[in-house]
Amino acid sequence: MPFDVGIDIGGTNTKIGVVDAQGRVVARRRIATQAGRGPRKALDRVAEAVKLLAATRRVRSLGVGIAGLVDTATGVVRVPPNLPGWHGFAVGDFLAKATGLETRCTNDVNAVTLGEWLHGAGLGCRDLFCLTLGTGVGGGAIVAGKLLLGANDAAGELGHTVIFGNGLPCRCGGVGCLERYVGSDYIVQRARQRVRAQKQRVRSHRHQVEMFGGPGAEKPSVLVDLTGRGRPRLSVKEVGRAARDGDPLALELVREVGEYVGIALVNVVALLDPERIVIGGGVSGLGPPLLDAARRTVMRRGQIFTGRRLRIVLSQLGGDAGVIGASRLAGQLGPA
Amino acid sequence: MPFDVGIDIGGTNTKIGVVDAQGRVVARRRIATQAGRGPRKALDRVAEAVKLLAATRRVRSLGVGIAGLVDTATGVVRVPPNLPGWHGFAVGDFLAKATGLETRCTNDVNAVTLGEWLHGAGLGCRDLFCLTLGTGVGGGAIVAGKLLLGANDAAGELGHTVIFGNGLPCRCGGVGCLERYVGSDYIVQRARQRVRAQKQRVRSHRHQVEMFGGPGAEKPSVLVDLTGRGRPRLSVKEVGRAARDGDPLALELVREVGEYVGIALVNVVALLDPERIVIGGGVSGLGPPLLDAARRTVMRRGQIFTGRRLRIVLSQLGGDAGVIGASRLAGQLGPA
Repeated sequence: MPFDVGIDIGGTNTKIGVVDAQGRVVARRRIATQAGRGPRKALDRVAEAVKLLAATRRVRSLGVGIAGLVDTATGVVRVPPNLPGWHGFAVGDFLAKATGLETRCTNDVNAVTLGEWLHGAGLGCRDLFCLTLGTGVGGGAIVAGKLLLGANDAAGELGHTVIFGNGLPCRCGGVGCLERYVGSDYIVQRARQRVRAQKQRVRSHRHQVEMFGGPGAEKPSVLVDLTGRGRPRLSVKEVGRAARDGDPLALELVREVGEYVGIALVNVVALLDPERIVIGGGVSGLGPPLLDAARRTVMRRGQIFTGRRLRIVLSQLGGDAGVIGASRLAGQLGPA
Repeated sequence: MPFDVGIDIGGTNTKIGVVDAQGRVVARRRIATQAGRGPRKALDRVAEAVKLLAATRRVRSLGVGIAGLVDTATGVVRVPPNLPGWHGFAVGDFLAKATGLETRCTNDVNAVTLGEWLHGAGLGCRDLFCLTLGTGVGGGAIVAGKLLLGANDAAGELGHTVIFGNGLPCRCGGVGCLERYVGSDYIVQRARQRVRAQKQRVRSHRHQVEMFGGPGAEKPSVLVDLTGRGRPRLSVKEVGRAARDGDPLALELVREVGEYVGIALVNVVALLDPERIVIGGGVSGLGPPLLDAARRTVMRRGQIFTGRRLRIVLSQLGGDAGVIGASRLAGQLGPA
């Protein structure tokens, strides 16, 4: 049975997987990208790992998902924010030569989209949208059974769609982008602010009770223990755990994230009319309360969508989606 | 030389045109739709007109653009807001039988998009977005050289994408939709408000000058003559004319419309990455100041788009785009 190799090159780590025809990862490696040493050195190490994994198997093709804009036709990377010094480098040609395998490259979120479409939560759809929630927020689309690329191979960029035209400035130079509201850094920032505000409320309430009597104070959020000097760094994971445990402050935060995502999805549904939307990426680990809030927001704000074929679901492949999807590139894009 | 017939069915008027292979309308008719009498009576009259126009020519196919959701595969209309009583009617089958011509149907804005793509301002593009500004705001897209339909034949609905997530309630049930800001009714409404506010400013300024002296008052907008009791109804056309004549109040209004459109286009570019965007529909008659403001907004807010292949232009086919595009449906969608 033939195999394909999928590679997911991120700013920090690179995942390599041998994927069978059913989309199962049968062997894998994870190495530090060491992006700062330049693309040649980094990709030499990737090629070595591929050769080791491929040595005992019949491997047909190599597919690469890269964190940044990628010219899908040529495999050249453009302005990758997390891969300094890689701009203009022909990742596809380099890896094809180094491994002897036919190689196709695309943007990392396109790879995730292909993975979920062909082997995950988007299976069987003709029109699909897949978003990835993390530090950055990305997206990819399948339109009429084909990966949507766009004129500059830059389609699906959900993180920098506008949800509040008069909103907060985003690091991209825009205003009111989705990423500015649901990127993991901003979720954590908001969690800290809410905890601080709660502390103050509790303190002033206690003072009032001491002076005049009255009912007990609001129960402090469990997140209190994770913020402040000398405490371990708060992350989205802890917010998610607290929400699952029923912590009201954390639940409210998660629901807000879902609502913001829902507003952006109204625009996705209006413009692309997918039959299914898959929510993936680390922040999607916030789980059902996030999903429910997103669904409710789409249904409430998108009343014109009533009666449409449309489902919003969570990712099925998790962290493997990128590797699995990348392994399918040759089949989807045709020969290099 | 073979011809095709294109039909553009709107809530008020229906346009019928015989179109040659170069996309020229060689013969045309315009009849009242009389939608309220039901689809059979209305379409019988359309079929009569088609037969008259086609009598002396070799006509290959019939294409219909309809104001509403249309099932492109079956030619059945769904919940057309301006065609009461037409829901569920198989327009395609009816016209095919009545005329003996192979008939394909789609949404009216999809027809406009095909027209501009094949014979107008979108000529030669692989990835195109076309928006129509009028009482309603619509959109259509060409993706990788094909009309984007979506899972429910409802893609491209730009009018109900969100530009202000915390904005004004829209008649669609949503919040902060583009149409709520640039639909022609709302432009006229804003024009009236601005004129009223200016009148008040001028009056109170005059009072101040009488009391204390000082410089002369702001010059009243030419739109003043078009608002108030007993005056002819103000329309977007007059706002456009005043803006062209340099009226500051009108110019500001037009620039605002362009800015709102620009915010929505940021989302189009982020999600679809077209190489060209065509702005059509009656309100696009506001012309260069609208176009310039839209372009500036996309460039300022969409700094991540810098260096991309992307042009924003005005429609070339104007009111004929729908008829010309509809005439191309059989060729684009394949046989019915």
